[in-house]
Amino acid sequence: MVTAAADTLEGAVRPAPALSTGTIDIALLGLGRVGSAVARAVLDTPSSGSARLRITGALIRYPERRRDVRLPASCLLTDAAEIFARRPRVVVEVLGGIEPARTLVRQALESGIPVVTANKSLVAAHGDELRRIAARSGAPFLCEATVIAGVPFLGTLSRRPRAAAVTCIRGIVNGTSNYLLTQMTATRTLAAALAEAARLGLSEPDPRNDVLGVDAAEKLSVLLQHLGWGRVAPHALDVRGIDGVQASDIDAARDLGGVIKPVILAERSVDAVTAFVGPAFVPLTDRLASVDGSENALALRNGYGELFYSGPGAGPQATAATVLDDVFEAATADGGRLESRSDAPRLSAIEPGAPVTAWFVRLTAAEKLPPAADIADLLGSFGIWLQRSSSLPATRQDACGFLTLPVERARLDSAIGALTAAARCHASVYRALEG
Amino acid sequence: MVTAAADTLEGAVRPAPALSTGTIDIALLGLGRVGSAVARAVLDTPSSGSARLRITGALIRYPERRRDVRLPASCLLTDAAEIFARRPRVVVEVLGGIEPARTLVRQALESGIPVVTANKSLVAAHGDELRRIAARSGAPFLCEATVIAGVPFLGTLSRRPRAAAVTCIRGIVNGTSNYLLTQMTATRTLAAALAEAARLGLSEPDPRNDVLGVDAAEKLSVLLQHLGWGRVAPHALDVRGIDGVQASDIDAARDLGGVIKPVILAERSVDAVTAFVGPAFVPLTDRLASVDGSENALALRNGYGELFYSGPGAGPQATAATVLDDVFEAATADGGRLESRSDAPRLSAIEPGAPVTAWFVRLTAAEKLPPAADIADLLGSFGIWLQRSSSLPATRQDACGFLTLPVERARLDSAIGALTAAARCHASVYRALEG
Repeated sequence: MVTAAADTLEGAVRPAPALSTGTIDIALLGLGRVGSAVARAVLDTPSSGSARLRITGALIRYPERRRDVRLPASCLLTDAAEIFARRPRVVVEVLGGIEPARTLVRQALESGIPVVTANKSLVAAHGDELRRIAARSGAPFLCEATVIAGVPFLGTLSRRPRAAAVTCIRGIVNGTSNYLLTQMTATRTLAAALAEAARLGLSEPDPRNDVLGVDAAEKLSVLLQHLGWGRVAPHALDVRGIDGVQASDIDAARDLGGVIKPVILAERSVDAVTAFVGPAFVPLTDRLASVDGSENALALRNGYGELFYSGPGAGPQATAATVLDDVFEAATADGGRLESRSDAPRLSAIEPGAPVTAWFVRLTAAEKLPPAADIADLLGSFGIWLQRSSSLPATRQDACGFLTLPVERARLDSAIGALTAAARCHASVYRALEG
Repeated sequence: MVTAAADTLEGAVRPAPALSTGTIDIALLGLGRVGSAVARAVLDTPSSGSARLRITGALIRYPERRRDVRLPASCLLTDAAEIFARRPRVVVEVLGGIEPARTLVRQALESGIPVVTANKSLVAAHGDELRRIAARSGAPFLCEATVIAGVPFLGTLSRRPRAAAVTCIRGIVNGTSNYLLTQMTATRTLAAALAEAARLGLSEPDPRNDVLGVDAAEKLSVLLQHLGWGRVAPHALDVRGIDGVQASDIDAARDLGGVIKPVILAERSVDAVTAFVGPAFVPLTDRLASVDGSENALALRNGYGELFYSGPGAGPQATAATVLDDVFEAATADGGRLESRSDAPRLSAIEPGAPVTAWFVRLTAAEKLPPAADIADLLGSFGIWLQRSSSLPATRQDACGFLTLPVERARLDSAIGALTAAARCHASVYRALEG
């Protein structure tokens, strides 16, 4: 068995000089979950295909670690210089995190070697810089797997200015937090939903970036770059985690014809960009409401309609397939044009502002809430108007939910502050997508 | 006003010699609904953009016809030779139909001029031939607007072999027939729904190709080419129109938790392709069930998940935007690589077979149907098993609906033949998508 595997692999490891056209030599930076999946997919690709793929080296940190991919020892290197010395046709960066990924990607691009990455943290933080280096050297820099890993659309929009003239972005781009909120209707607590996700292997060992909205914020930042809106650091966005969501909030949303989903939202007008990442009330009539589990979805409104994309949002297999399609594009394309919008001008930094939006509010009191009419009166005195409120059974007066008409957050906060003080109740507040 | 328009246009009509990089000269073949929208979009594009577009000639059939686009007379030509003599950078074919479109597109491609077309009839019938001419001459041949006009994905899949390794296609790709079936729940007859669509300008002057499934069949044929499944003439597909659908069929589908939608379906196994175009029972839990009106949608299952695309399916504005994005790609791309999968080998002809599928059947009798148990017994004697049947009020015994387990059509037809003869009733039969 080992012999057979070695036989199969021989062609995949010979350092080999100039090659017949049709063979694409790949250097893998990183051999973790995604890197191993990429390696397996390369080894499983029949060589009869249109282009043969070959891994000439894989950069690893821990040579002693056991790995479930049959790359021969001569391929596993701890020194990046040795990887580059084998002159790969394409570098695939799947290290994750900023360093050493940033330095190595820069190095490859500066030497004119195309780079494919699945690393959203890197692109969110330094995509603008890397894209400009790529444009200068003429080496493609592709990152299709960074947003909705399994659905190719970023590269497409980079090439198509009219489709990419997007003014509104709505989406669910973090499968883990979406799965957790879906599960919470059954498990009742986030902790129990997390335990279930871990048991099923659906969450990362450390799910904090998913729960706190960091992963989704990075993806929104990548999207804003790709659509040419500008540069924004993920931490500069209005980001909220799902850790404050109560199962009873989800129930209350359901009473008002909606569901709580972890969304990204961004709107662009002539002079302002507003953006938000976090749990929001999504009406059941909105197609995002039916995006469940690990599926991701994105609705992009442009000058002539709304483009809707959905599909597998993560997972080593989908990510590896997308990475290898990027490798194929990078190796066969006309270099720098890909992903470099008009020679990659420096994107301006954007300061997202506060949107005027509808809100979903849930009030809970230890004992009894004031009559609905009194609540509406108090909110009205702040200029907050209700579009819908939940009708509670007469026997239950300790909780209610309502949807406001669009209003800015500051005004809502003042009103809610006055209300919770006067009525001695607690309020959960969520942004609401328009129905 | 006229003077101002002439001023604005001057740059757009000067036959002009060699031009600064950044200006893309377009020859328009056809100036109908889509052609005029393309011309308007070109005239409206600010020249400050990354690439300037200019129409050097538009081929028209009737010079005397009044047009709502301000192209100067010197641009309107009835002679294609004169159009080509102006040496356009890209030819845009929006004539519709096979001839003279086919001859002119061949001519352009053979001279190495990139061609963009929105003409699905042409691509369905001759896409294979035209793609091979394009691959030989190195001129791109793009047709993104032929399927879901407003959503770019065909070109993307052409470049990405792993995403494009699709084994199952499900979609709604004809907005007119989808709109008509949606309306029929209110209007009760197809004729009334057609009149309403015509009044609102939502249907073609002659909607036969939409109603009879021809338009959807052409789109499926284009898809099968693009995904590398093979060549199939639209008329060789199993195509049914929506003209046989009764409003009461739609009601009965609703009773069983579904809706009748005009779908395309194709599945590929190791040795067979099955394909279908026509009205089908779609469970409400299927995301295709909520695709309404003029929206189009496509679900493509590949090795790692299901990619779902939806958006505007037609309309001059969406089509023009997609055509111009294709122009931009064709003019800036590395020629022949686009849309030419591995040098465009001749696609094999495919003979789609009959699938084994679930069916939705609605029975109506002039007087009274046999008891449900008797119907189930008779069907069972043919090896047809029911997964669900509608429970009718005791007062109504003249109609019923049921869903079968998957079975081949021939066996279903024998059973239904025996049943309608024995019970003296009429049967409407629809393919059912799996729930």
